[in-house]
Order: sequence, then structure tokens, then C-alpha cells
Amino acid sequence: MLRYARPIQQLIEALEKLPGIGPKTAQRLTFFLLRSSEQDVRTLGEAILSLKGETQLCQQCYNYCTAELCPICEDPHRDGSVICVVEEVSDLMALERPGEYQGLYHVIGGALSPVENVKPSDLRISELLERIKQTLPQEIILATSPTVEGDATAEYLRELIRALPDPPRITRIALGLPVGGDLDYADQVTLARALRGRTVMED
Amino acid sequence: MLRYARPIQQLIEALEKLPGIGPKTAQRLTFFLLRSSEQDVRTLGEAILSLKGETQLCQQCYNYCTAELCPICEDPHRDGSVICVVEEVSDLMALERPGEYQGLYHVIGGALSPVENVKPSDLRISELLERIKQTLPQEIILATSPTVEGDATAEYLRELIRALPDPPRITRIALGLPVGGDLDYADQVTLARALRGRTVMED
Repeated sequence: MLRYARPIQQLIEALEKLPGIGPKTAQRLTFFLLRSSEQDVRTLGEAILSLKGETQLCQQCYNYCTAELCPICEDPHRDGSVICVVEEVSDLMALERPGEYQGLYHVIGGALSPVENVKPSDLRISELLERIKQTLPQEIILATSPTVEGDATAEYLRELIRALPDPPRITRIALGLPVGGDLDYADQVTLARALRGRTVMED
Repeated sequence: MLRYARPIQQLIEALEKLPGIGPKTAQRLTFFLLRSSEQDVRTLGEAILSLKGETQLCQQCYNYCTAELCPICEDPHRDGSVICVVEEVSDLMALERPGEYQGLYHVIGGALSPVENVKPSDLRISELLERIKQTLPQEIILATSPTVEGDATAEYLRELIRALPDPPRITRIALGLPVGGDLDYADQVTLARALRGRTVMED
């Protein structure tokens, strides 16, 4: 029924496939691009086209990168004795944002889930165990999400890592109240975990 | 501080320039594209790159099209005796969606606004008047937005069209309660306009 010009229709349909972008937003973005400068539109289009071709996975930690190793693994100032295990690259990016953590990462690529049929062999778990055996880190931080799947994955990894000869220290990222959060609004499970994980106040 | 691979960083920055897309959404979309198939990503990138080059403005109504005239102006089944004046192509698209209107359009490209310094010469008003003089339509529907700017633009156009020799009938798109809307929730201005614009119920 709609009589969009073909290039417009094609872009709207392509944008609609993106998560969180419905027909209205896709149309709005398309009309915005029609009004944008030729240069801005070309920059966006070329950034999309070069994304897949120029991006690969870090051979050590499975972060996205353009070389064999990612900038984190290549950085001589990072502490190779600590490996933080995360589900996805976006989790790694979130942990990098505060600029606090100085160790390395290992992106396993998801969490175990019987519902979504994610088995241990679907994740980069054997690669993690092999890496631990070869680089002998002192600590493994399990930073999978505090969800049923993430917790189960952390438990599963803990068992496997503990069974290694001379295993590293295994820690789990802290669960508790978010900073700035109101105790009154926190859900019961978070409150219970925050109580259980209470720490001694230093002088 | 953040250590994204360069192609990822470039795409995030390009996406952030789009309206309604902040850093978080830009990152989420980028990681979605990294997980998408090569084909889907190429389709999107190429659709963006071909958008500006292959799209032009209809010489008659200023809708977007790929030829000299847009599909609406070219369609022999459309009623050339009615021209509906809208601000933007997206308004034209919205009016096309119900599939009810069978006349033609004229996209003037915005609304008069002293605040945003949009003057009559910035809009395609002389083109509209010329078109009316040449094609002699029977009715002009002023469908600019029911905003201060849209109302002022409609008033301005009405004066100009009325001053033409043998002017067409000039109508304004109806203002009133949205279908399915709750009278209780309607704002006062809309309620007042809906009362003022009441119509006789047919038997």
C-alpha cells in the first residue's frame, strides 16, 4: 500500500531488523538520513560495511579486535595474573568503563542455558581451561551475570577450575545494592544477597 | 579510556549521531551487527550508501522518488483535482497509510517559525501557488500539523491561495478527539477544538 521510493523502502526494511527498532523508528531514522549531509551518511554506511570484514576475535580472550591480539591482551601494563571471565564482549566493555580493573579477560560467549539449549561445548570453556593451564594466573574472577544462567555457569566453571592441578584463586563478582540505589526499592533477592555478602567496615 | 577495536568505535560514533540513539543503544546495535550474518550487515550498509544517490525529489509534489515524478503523481488513478499540502514527506506517508486519500500532495518542506527562523521563502510555497495556477485543482487540503507553526502556515497559505484568480476550495484537516481516545484524558485545547468542529449526525 505504501508508496515509498525503493531505496527508502529498502533502508526502512533493513533498519527494522535491528533490535529495538520498529517500523516507526526505522522510518524516522531513514528520513533523518535523507536530510543529513552526504558525508555523514557515507560515514555511517561505510562503518557498517567495514565492521565485519575488519573485525576479528582476539586469539587469547575473544574480545573483538583488528589484530591477532586485542589491545587489552597486548597492553604490557595489564596484569596477566588475573583473568576476569565474562559472558559477552559487551560485559567486558562495561567492566572497562570504570577504568579500575587492570587484569585480563576471557569472553566465553554466553551462559549455560537448558532453555535456550546452550551447552558447555557451545561456550569457550575448554579454551579458558587451556589458557589457565598455560598462563598459570593467580586469580580467576567469575563475572558472569547474576542470573540463574550466569550463576549456574559460574558454579560449573568453579568446579572445572578447582579440579585443575595447582588451581588459581576463584572469586565471584560482588552482588549487592547498586550505588545510589534506595534500599527501600531493592528487590528481596538483591537485599538477601547484599546482607549475605556484607563486609567488615575498615577503620 | 575504552578500548574498542577501531571499526567498532567508528560505527558506534556514527550511530550515536542518529536521533534517539545514545551511546548505549549505539553499542547494543553495533554488537548486534557483529553477531548478525554477513549478508544482513551488507544489506544494511548498502541500503544506507545508496539512499542519497538514488533518491531525488518529485518535480511536482516534492515527495522522495527515484524518477522525475513520484509514484503518487505518476499514478493515473489518483485524483488530480485535490492537492493535500503537508509539511514533510513523513506526513505524506502517514496520510497514505490508511489508504483512503486518493488525491495528490504537495510537500512544502516545513512550517513557518519565527523561533527557528523559517520564512516563507524557505518553504515550497511559490511552487505550490504556481502549481495551483497551472493545474487548477478544485480543492486544497491544508494538512500542516495542528501546532502553532502549522496553524500559522495554514493561515498564511489560505490568504495566498484565496488571492489567486479563480481560487480552489480551501479546507483544513479536521481537529478533534483521536479515535479510541478517552475523552477524560484529552487535553483542553483538543476538547475545545473537537466541540467547535462538531458535525451533524446523519440518519
